[in-house]
Amino acid sequence: MTFHLVTIFPEFFQGFLSNGIVAKAIEAGVVRVQVHNLRDWTQDRHKTVDDRPFGGGEGMLMKCQPLFDAVEAILPERSEHTRIVLLSAQGRKFDQECARRLSACSEIVFLCGRYEGVDERVAEHLADEELSIGDFVVSGGELPAALILDSVARLVPGVVGNEASTENESFNRELPEGGRLLDCPQYTRPAEFRGWPVPDVLLSGHHGEIVKWRREAALAKTRRMRPDLLP
Amino acid sequence: MTFHLVTIFPEFFQGFLSNGIVAKAIEAGVVRVQVHNLRDWTQDRHKTVDDRPFGGGEGMLMKCQPLFDAVEAILPERSEHTRIVLLSAQGRKFDQECARRLSACSEIVFLCGRYEGVDERVAEHLADEELSIGDFVVSGGELPAALILDSVARLVPGVVGNEASTENESFNRELPEGGRLLDCPQYTRPAEFRGWPVPDVLLSGHHGEIVKWRREAALAKTRRMRPDLLP
Repeated sequence: MTFHLVTIFPEFFQGFLSNGIVAKAIEAGVVRVQVHNLRDWTQDRHKTVDDRPFGGGEGMLMKCQPLFDAVEAILPERSEHTRIVLLSAQGRKFDQECARRLSACSEIVFLCGRYEGVDERVAEHLADEELSIGDFVVSGGELPAALILDSVARLVPGVVGNEASTENESFNRELPEGGRLLDCPQYTRPAEFRGWPVPDVLLSGHHGEIVKWRREAALAKTRRMRPDLLP
Repeated sequence: MTFHLVTIFPEFFQGFLSNGIVAKAIEAGVVRVQVHNLRDWTQDRHKTVDDRPFGGGEGMLMKCQPLFDAVEAILPERSEHTRIVLLSAQGRKFDQECARRLSACSEIVFLCGRYEGVDERVAEHLADEELSIGDFVVSGGELPAALILDSVARLVPGVVGNEASTENESFNRELPEGGRLLDCPQYTRPAEFRGWPVPDVLLSGHHGEIVKWRREAALAKTRRMRPDLLP
């Protein structure tokens, strides 16, 4: 699977691409990531990527031309297996379902918006979809693109060593009655830390009791932290 | 305002901290960011930060001791102006309201979870709050911490040049009848790109008409992309 990151800050992704699971997946050749400097597709000597909004208003917008030209150079042929994703605060909200859907693609291009926004014609005529990472404002699409890349790459077979791992994680545990559970609380050694003991049942060795406790603890934590996930 | 990032991948943040608005805020001295290597607080020669979960299960958990020791060294005195934030998929969901609340702090410590999770005693007895970035699984807390840092730093006076900018952004535009609007679509030159024209009204110079069009276009886009935001 190949990911393309189109950005005005190509060095932004260095740390992200050389540490952790994505770095390992790249090394193993399971995933390819190419970072593209949007300014390589500008046409003036100042390498301008932005301009003032029509109709007035603060800030600058990213222009159409460099983005259209970049995508057409990076992905000359589009198909049902390719996806152009514009990161913006005005997009649909990214979630695990969306990660699963994107993980079926062979090639994804992320367009990292900056400044006040991006000329709307990019969302209308270039991008296949517009995604937002959540209900908060960030400076640009770079971090959201990295998060989505990480989340999608984890679902590519061979990226996360233990396949059972991705199965059991939060947001994959659906309840038969609808809704989902967060992961249950987990503990590791020491059995007592600064006077705070691990729940007895986890040390008991009774598999059935442990499963029951974990389910109840996951339900209690979901109720407390994310009641919106429950039916 | 000072941010601390506690991580096993200290180089992860290099690109993020040297590009864009956060880099400018650091340069201007408005914001300080310190990256701490969690392994500096381990006690064995292998610098172990993780261990197997009690009660069985796949993967590894982050241990209490290095995290407790790190926080106590980084933030010897806690007050109402300090905040210890654990990033995890089991946390409350971060949003703009939360960004505003955190922007009133003078010092925030982000604990970046990795592996399958973190010993629950960290959430129970060390962190002031546990935050999740959204309903999807990522490899660790580094990207979520960077996103939250960016989002909070933007609200610190002096970080975003034009104060009007943060006022007008998505998720700050509340409707009198409840709910919120996304930003309106915006366009920049050329007035026609590949046969796609900018809406006439934006070229008209009629301020009142432009304001009306923008409000309607923002409403239409919100209805299409994020109907959940409307009352």
